[in-house]
Amino acid sequence: MSSFATTAEPPYYAVIFTSRRTEGDAGYGETAARMEELARQVPGYLGIESARAADGFGLTVSYWASESAIAEWRRHIEHVAAQSRGRREWYRHYEVRIAKVERAYTGPATR
Amino acid sequence: MSSFATTAEPPYYAVIFTSRRTEGDAGYGETAARMEELARQVPGYLGIESARAADGFGLTVSYWASESAIAEWRRHIEHVAAQSRGRREWYRHYEVRIAKVERAYTGPATR
Repeated sequence: MSSFATTAEPPYYAVIFTSRRTEGDAGYGETAARMEELARQVPGYLGIESARAADGFGLTVSYWASESAIAEWRRHIEHVAAQSRGRREWYRHYEVRIAKVERAYTGPATR
Repeated sequence: MSSFATTAEPPYYAVIFTSRRTEGDAGYGETAARMEELARQVPGYLGIESARAADGFGLTVSYWASESAIAEWRRHIEHVAAQSRGRREWYRHYEVRIAKVERAYTGPATR
């Protein structure tokens, strides 16, 4: 992760996932990588951007072509299992916000 | 920063700011704190969530009651100066997406 998502012109959807992790990895890194690999295969997946600070607080925003693509990903069987483990083991707390991106612009050209 | 924003029920707006910083501070930390202080005073400001990884890639999402509140903040004189300095000095690249939050839910109760 740790790079910019290449999204086309709005409108499209964003899932804003804000979280505070528990201590230690406990399989989190491996599952996060697997989830990204699986999400990429869902039709309508547009990209993901993510950053976590050293104190365990992080933001992940994934981008989707439609609400039905988001719903499909949310119901994916491996993702459902990961969500459950996330609630039990990996996250102290999280907030999920589903938003429709209406406008976008960029800053200096260098990536 | 580095904590959850307390937002009311949707709908409201989110400004998703994804960025990669240049090396070094160069006054960035001080200005970022000042911008947060000023944003808080804009009517319609709802909160901010932010995380930056050690490699300089970061996400900041600010929440607003309306598009006019976002427009007011974007035009704030000190913020305009900070945006200009950001393009010249602090950011290698950034992406800004303005989105309307339609639904929200939360995970485990502990914050």
